[in-house]
Amino acid sequence: MLIVMDKNASAADVKNVVKKIESMGLRAVPMPGAQRTAVCVLGNKGPLDASLFNVMRGVKEAIPVSKPYKMVSRESKDGPSRVRVGKELIGGGGMAMIAGPCAVESEEQCLKIAQSVKKSGARFFRGGAYKPRTSPYAFQGLGEPGLKILAKVRERFGLYIVTEAIDHEILATVAGYADVVQIGARNMQNYSLLRAAGKCGRPVLLKRGMSATIEEWLMAAEYVMSEGNPDVILCERGVRTFADHSRNTLDLSAVLVVKQLSHLPVIVDPSHAAGRRDLVIPLAKAAIAVGADGLMIEVHNQPEKALSDGAQSLRLHEFKELACQVRRMSQAAKQSK
Amino acid sequence: MLIVMDKNASAADVKNVVKKIESMGLRAVPMPGAQRTAVCVLGNKGPLDASLFNVMRGVKEAIPVSKPYKMVSRESKDGPSRVRVGKELIGGGGMAMIAGPCAVESEEQCLKIAQSVKKSGARFFRGGAYKPRTSPYAFQGLGEPGLKILAKVRERFGLYIVTEAIDHEILATVAGYADVVQIGARNMQNYSLLRAAGKCGRPVLLKRGMSATIEEWLMAAEYVMSEGNPDVILCERGVRTFADHSRNTLDLSAVLVVKQLSHLPVIVDPSHAAGRRDLVIPLAKAAIAVGADGLMIEVHNQPEKALSDGAQSLRLHEFKELACQVRRMSQAAKQSK
Amino acid sequence: MLIVMDKNASAADVKNVVKKIESMGLRAVPMPGAQRTAVCVLGNKGPLDASLFNVMRGVKEAIPVSKPYKMVSRESKDGPSRVRVGKELIGGGGMAMIAGPCAVESEEQCLKIAQSVKKSGARFFRGGAYKPRTSPYAFQGLGEPGLKILAKVRERFGLYIVTEAIDHEILATVAGYADVVQIGARNMQNYSLLRAAGKCGRPVLLKRGMSATIEEWLMAAEYVMSEGNPDVILCERGVRTFADHSRNTLDLSAVLVVKQLSHLPVIVDPSHAAGRRDLVIPLAKAAIAVGADGLMIEVHNQPEKALSDGAQSLRLHEFKELACQVRRMSQAAKQSK
Amino acid sequence: MLIVMDKNASAADVKNVVKKIESMGLRAVPMPGAQRTAVCVLGNKGPLDASLFNVMRGVKEAIPVSKPYKMVSRESKDGPSRVRVGKELIGGGGMAMIAGPCAVESEEQCLKIAQSVKKSGARFFRGGAYKPRTSPYAFQGLGEPGLKILAKVRERFGLYIVTEAIDHEILATVAGYADVVQIGARNMQNYSLLRAAGKCGRPVLLKRGMSATIEEWLMAAEYVMSEGNPDVILCERGVRTFADHSRNTLDLSAVLVVKQLSHLPVIVDPSHAAGRRDLVIPLAKAAIAVGADGLMIEVHNQPEKALSDGAQSLRLHEFKELACQVRRMSQAAKQSK
Repeated sequence: MLIVMDKNASAADVKNVVKKIESMGLRAVPMPGAQRTAVCVLGNKGPLDASLFNVMRGVKEAIPVSKPYKMVSRESKDGPSRVRVGKELIGGGGMAMIAGPCAVESEEQCLKIAQSVKKSGARFFRGGAYKPRTSPYAFQGLGEPGLKILAKVRERFGLYIVTEAIDHEILATVAGYADVVQIGARNMQNYSLLRAAGKCGRPVLLKRGMSATIEEWLMAAEYVMSEGNPDVILCERGVRTFADHSRNTLDLSAVLVVKQLSHLPVIVDPSHAAGRRDLVIPLAKAAIAVGADGLMIEVHNQPEKALSDGAQSLRLHEFKELACQVRRMSQAAKQSK
Repeated sequence: MLIVMDKNASAADVKNVVKKIESMGLRAVPMPGAQRTAVCVLGNKGPLDASLFNVMRGVKEAIPVSKPYKMVSRESKDGPSRVRVGKELIGGGGMAMIAGPCAVESEEQCLKIAQSVKKSGARFFRGGAYKPRTSPYAFQGLGEPGLKILAKVRERFGLYIVTEAIDHEILATVAGYADVVQIGARNMQNYSLLRAAGKCGRPVLLKRGMSATIEEWLMAAEYVMSEGNPDVILCERGVRTFADHSRNTLDLSAVLVVKQLSHLPVIVDPSHAAGRRDLVIPLAKAAIAVGADGLMIEVHNQPEKALSDGAQSLRLHEFKELACQVRRMSQAAKQSK
Repeated sequence: MLIVMDKNASAADVKNVVKKIESMGLRAVPMPGAQRTAVCVLGNKGPLDASLFNVMRGVKEAIPVSKPYKMVSRESKDGPSRVRVGKELIGGGGMAMIAGPCAVESEEQCLKIAQSVKKSGARFFRGGAYKPRTSPYAFQGLGEPGLKILAKVRERFGLYIVTEAIDHEILATVAGYADVVQIGARNMQNYSLLRAAGKCGRPVLLKRGMSATIEEWLMAAEYVMSEGNPDVILCERGVRTFADHSRNTLDLSAVLVVKQLSHLPVIVDPSHAAGRRDLVIPLAKAAIAVGADGLMIEVHNQPEKALSDGAQSLRLHEFKELACQVRRMSQAAKQSK
Repeated sequence: MLIVMDKNASAADVKNVVKKIESMGLRAVPMPGAQRTAVCVLGNKGPLDASLFNVMRGVKEAIPVSKPYKMVSRESKDGPSRVRVGKELIGGGGMAMIAGPCAVESEEQCLKIAQSVKKSGARFFRGGAYKPRTSPYAFQGLGEPGLKILAKVRERFGLYIVTEAIDHEILATVAGYADVVQIGARNMQNYSLLRAAGKCGRPVLLKRGMSATIEEWLMAAEYVMSEGNPDVILCERGVRTFADHSRNTLDLSAVLVVKQLSHLPVIVDPSHAAGRRDLVIPLAKAAIAVGADGLMIEVHNQPEKALSDGAQSLRLHEFKELACQVRRMSQAAKQSK
């Protein structure tokens, strides 16, 4: 159940509702919105009696939630969420540009790429220090030394760091260096990791699982939010289908549908969707066209020597060109409003 | 094998090559390009000896074709093909706008929609007189009276008519009224129909099958071309996947990959891909962003009363808005070149 | 709507019901069952008033049909259908064994294979005289001379002939030679062909489309039945998925679900599902284990020289072994009842 | 690289090879087989020179491994592996029967089910104490008290316990109670968990991921084995496809192909594949028909009251019937050899 408060409800009114819920042995999570607050009721096994809340002061409406998710739902929040990362906002109109190599390979590599993507207009730097690899014999990432390199990138260029945590043990370490903690596609239903991410104190970038439905994806976000972390950014990265001309099939309709069902920002990763460099720029532009809140792009100074995913990484000048086209599209979109 | 002629090869040179091929018991199909002609060799069971042709006058190169398709291939033609329909060209830079109802229901309906989409900027009118329906008990289309209504639309508004032929028996009738003959997704591997379409004397719009690979789709186009019809327009309309939030999953990477492999124009049908009205405009914009050569959009004056596919049809004013946005995007794209 | 007649209803009662239906401008199709007759009402746009029929003599019940299919439905017929082909019955307990090459290549080839599979226990011979091929340049079958070879096989060995019709034009010719007319997976939604098959006077073997849902498959069968042909045999042959270790993914649960929803017999083609010889025998046994009514197996005397699908064809002795195992499984299943 | 030792190679020969490998900064893992030992070389970035090993005493052959997996591969071991669990063996000919509820709900429930399935012939008891659930608000399992109940089941009925570990933190606890530790489909690419499972000292049952290819699945097993745990049992449980008549599409060809590529035993879980009770028994029989090494079946004394997955759980008498049929099929298969 979702208790939607009046625009003019006081803090005391909200507190009363929370108390009432807790007195029933349930959990209450207030979610302040731009115009009004909603209070999520968690933990009820069966349906609740709406009239218990409808009569309370400051309550506009008690809504039995039919969808299995609550806190991620549009019903629980009016308008899109904006996730703050330092001075940047993701969601609600902007176009967040996240760029960098698949894996952190060396300080020299990262500084070179960072300098270039910063100049091209990126505000976020991506790079994996811990890499989930299909093979136990493949390069698994530099680990904490890789995180230290990322910290240097932030220090030197002022770029915010987006990097993946591959299990809940490593999560605290990663959160100590990262500005945004990424949960990868393979871990989208790793519920221990999701719960830990809900308590890590950092915004979470949650990739869609390889064959996840919209509902499963939103439920994964609900795991993070239900632990108290409101700052979830969703990331579409293609799904697995019979098609073999690209690594995955980018599902742009998912961006649209998720934005109808949820208030959370949604960005797109065309690099992993395509798996080949030549498709990345046009798919990135398509993502902007459907209204994605940002892009996550793999960029490498020497793709042919990359330790992982070189074939899909843009070269530095290609990213510059992409960033330039993105700016133009965004401006054109604004002017036409 | 593909015999690529010299830029300066004479008509007699080409003729000689054709004769040589025919003398070996094979078929030769000359394909004139902007700068040079290529001659496709059809019917060989095993590999041919390139040196037989390389020594002939006017021959630049004899290329053993590794791909199973030949005439649709980029190898056989330099630069993108443009398909002429009356005064319009599809492919090679423009943005063909095809709009109209799923099914022709009545003269009044068609004239109303046609008037509106014409004013909004469409140059092509779509509408099915023969409808392939999952159920034998569903509305199957008006048949030839429907085609007559379409002819009236062309006469009255100067819109070119795109309409589907559902079997090779009806094809001649359809071709008698249509400017472009459509082959539907369910018929993409109906080879009798494809062969007949190759001889129908009209440009053919070939939809991608529900779960067709790129290669199967191009091979279907090869069927049409190998019967002598060079005017094939491909249409991506989404593929079937596990995802259930849209009717099909629009595969925009297919547009990009097909344009690399083939010279044929590729348009996008976001209406059938989405299956729901609210996704059509943003997916259409995404299609333009990846460089589609046109859009095919279902439009209805009263979607809630449509005899088929009403849920995915744009209203007249919605199409107007889409057409307006498309124009703006196309202009912006041109200016930025 | 479905009008279920009383066990003791007379022919005159049935006739009256038919007349009543026709007087409303609708079509009536009586379907005699083992114990009672049901009359399908076709052509109604909206719901009908059941009470109009419930009061008539001999009517047990008028059932509004919620499923989109009627005549194929379990609701319209008590117990499984048996399709008679000469002296053989398919469905309702037996295990029909259909074997032969993918394509008819020569008289010698067919007679050799036929002699062997007959001896191994097959009662039906398969072989394509018209082959739907992805490439226009691939072997398309021998055509009518191939049909004549098949006729010779029947004459010589008493095997019933199962062969494919690839379009409605050729259907009459094929039906002139075949005992069972096959509709291939690519043509499962070729509605003109389905309608023609409904009037061809031969039992129809209808393969499941590459990515067809159960409902689409049953609706395709409904097309055939609604034209008056009650003798439809369904054939599961694998569906297209992301999996690449077999050509298609054999969906045995489909056999079970179809048998719940429909009275029609369902057989399985493990050869096309697997696409590789080494999987055919175990998948065939799995098909028997779920209760399939028959098997369709590709067999070739020289698979390495086959003009199509050699890689998935069993050798003569392999088929003998399969047939032997099948017999043993069937006997064991009967004894354990 | 894989160093295959001579049949007559001594322990000292093997030791020498291991030393040689380690002297190159690489890891060596000896794998004793029935007739000979193979030594896996792990950690090499590029190709190794086979001649370095071919000259050593007791070495039969040094094989550069083309597949990305080594230890799970048929190349590394002659004949199928048998995983010992107490007095039982899984793999290599038997038919392991694992039965029990989806989730451990109460002691009473478990004892009741255990008593019944034991009597019907099961030797293993399944039941989740930690449940990975799509919703954070759904029943997540009893946790360690649930494990204690499972221990009681073992003590009382002598059934071996198969239960899931959902993260590497809980793994040690689970391994303290379980005879076989299960890794669920959602965690198939949770590499931290796989590595931990490789060190847990218990056999591991590894379910195939929802949309995992054969190679990804075997690579996941390789993660477990490469940490020193040779006792991996693979479990096919259906994959996600467009088909919606069963929860997943059971891919029995995967069982066959995995058994060709790997020496590991493969069992089948028809309950999760089907998602509906009425399909479980026939699909289980199909699994036996293709040669699966065991079955994992959900059984509940009151499915309609189950806290999770009741719709797919067999009733006690249904399981008895299944077990009876399985025995008969196994015997028939043995007699026919």
